[in-house]
Amino acid sequence: MASMITPTMLVVILLLCGLDYASMFQVLDLTHDLSAKTLYWPGNPSYNFTELARGQMDNFWYESNFIATAEHGGTHVDSPAHFYEGGWRTQQIPMERLTGPGVVIDVKDKARDNPDYRVLLNDITEWESVNGRIPDNAAVIMNSGWGAKYPNKTAVFGTETPSVPSTFHFPAWHQDTVTWLINQRHVYMIGVDTPSTDFGQSSTFPTHVVLSKHNVVGLENVANLDTIPVSGTRIFAAVTKIKDGSGGPARIFATISTEDEKCTNSGPLRLPLSVLSLICVGVATIMFMYHDEQI
Amino acid sequence: MASMITPTMLVVILLLCGLDYASMFQVLDLTHDLSAKTLYWPGNPSYNFTELARGQMDNFWYESNFIATAEHGGTHVDSPAHFYEGGWRTQQIPMERLTGPGVVIDVKDKARDNPDYRVLLNDITEWESVNGRIPDNAAVIMNSGWGAKYPNKTAVFGTETPSVPSTFHFPAWHQDTVTWLINQRHVYMIGVDTPSTDFGQSSTFPTHVVLSKHNVVGLENVANLDTIPVSGTRIFAAVTKIKDGSGGPARIFATISTEDEKCTNSGPLRLPLSVLSLICVGVATIMFMYHDEQI
Repeated sequence: MASMITPTMLVVILLLCGLDYASMFQVLDLTHDLSAKTLYWPGNPSYNFTELARGQMDNFWYESNFIATAEHGGTHVDSPAHFYEGGWRTQQIPMERLTGPGVVIDVKDKARDNPDYRVLLNDITEWESVNGRIPDNAAVIMNSGWGAKYPNKTAVFGTETPSVPSTFHFPAWHQDTVTWLINQRHVYMIGVDTPSTDFGQSSTFPTHVVLSKHNVVGLENVANLDTIPVSGTRIFAAVTKIKDGSGGPARIFATISTEDEKCTNSGPLRLPLSVLSLICVGVATIMFMYHDEQI
Repeated sequence: MASMITPTMLVVILLLCGLDYASMFQVLDLTHDLSAKTLYWPGNPSYNFTELARGQMDNFWYESNFIATAEHGGTHVDSPAHFYEGGWRTQQIPMERLTGPGVVIDVKDKARDNPDYRVLLNDITEWESVNGRIPDNAAVIMNSGWGAKYPNKTAVFGTETPSVPSTFHFPAWHQDTVTWLINQRHVYMIGVDTPSTDFGQSSTFPTHVVLSKHNVVGLENVANLDTIPVSGTRIFAAVTKIKDGSGGPARIFATISTEDEKCTNSGPLRLPLSVLSLICVGVATIMFMYHDEQI
């Protein structure tokens, strides 16, 4: 009997080892184009794109351009220096603070009914009751559905007068929720799919202040949040490394890999593989002892 | 005897399983600051950084700035449109083409003796003889030691007249080597720690042309290459998503994780774990059969 079971076990183990090596890796872009349609807060200089060259040279085709942009427009990063004296400027943010486990808080229904909605602690506890505790050092991003409105200026700012901030209506974070995430979950980044981590009607920007004060990075106008799962991803906020910047245009994206899942919790194959190993040894031992009795 | 060996095996397996779960993740920046010292090819407009606000407002500290830069300066990406009509412009490059296994080709000794050195196929076969076959879809980057000279203009361009390209002397890629990597290793990105993927004395830019023609992304002025291993990393070239761009400033970085290493099949613990499982089963079986003979 042993000589029947054991080879089978060998094959299964080898199979699982093989499967365990095959890993899936995906990278998903969460960034709006930087263009003449890029949305900036009122008062910022407008975006400029200038062709320096575009055409056939003697030996080759050649294109080259020049751009000018405010730091805080489109999909971008708020550095801690943005709202706190002495906070990290863009080039000072440690690289490891620009990546972390991705957590997406879906408040689309609430924001549809109330464009002034602010993410509450309740939304976080609801998320955790379904998806488990938010891992430390995460990038926690609000998905309000606003990303779909971009770059429609009046729709995104929620006003017919997009040059007048006092008329803005769009959702964002409540400062108490962010304070809790900083103290209780040690978040590295807080994001929104709207123009500001403070909601449209804010004039004192308390969320910006608490983020900057704790050297937490802000992510604004994050795109395509419906294309990633609410957990199990890794977020990267690759901000242009502007010396002495208060932020900057960023390439924000998510990676999904079976390996990441193994890191965050339990690998789909690692555990069975280990358990199976134990079973094999167990079975062989029992049969061995069973035989002892036979003697 | 079995009852002595088996528990030991159980403990060792459990130990290895435990270790196998503990995974290391590092992210290393390969990007020079974007600043007034940023190096551009002659003829480009100079970098501009303008403070829009920096100081105490009524309720909070506030900093905000505006930048202007040519696409092709400092640590940046060359999009395929740069040297090939109809090649991908910056926002058209699929996100998965901006990441891949990292391969660093160290030619520091050769470049020290010859600033006009171009990476040869021989350098690639040497690398593979030590590190194994270059994985498909990799980012293959030359480390010539030039990164340490940055941003010293005359040192980086290798001339006392950095406004005259015909006097430039710095190493880069030989177009035949790049062609081989595209055809035989299906590379996604080719990088240098110098200002151009074509060497300083080039006037026809054959490497740029072959890269662009095959929709392969170029990485220029990559920084800190001595801080990452020559294999086992994952490279990300997070370029600013400039609509209709021919390239752009990029946050280039590498990630290192035990999980990555497992993906590239040199898992430090997975293999021993599997082998040990087989040994356990094997030993138990042999002892089982040995007993049969005893009967």
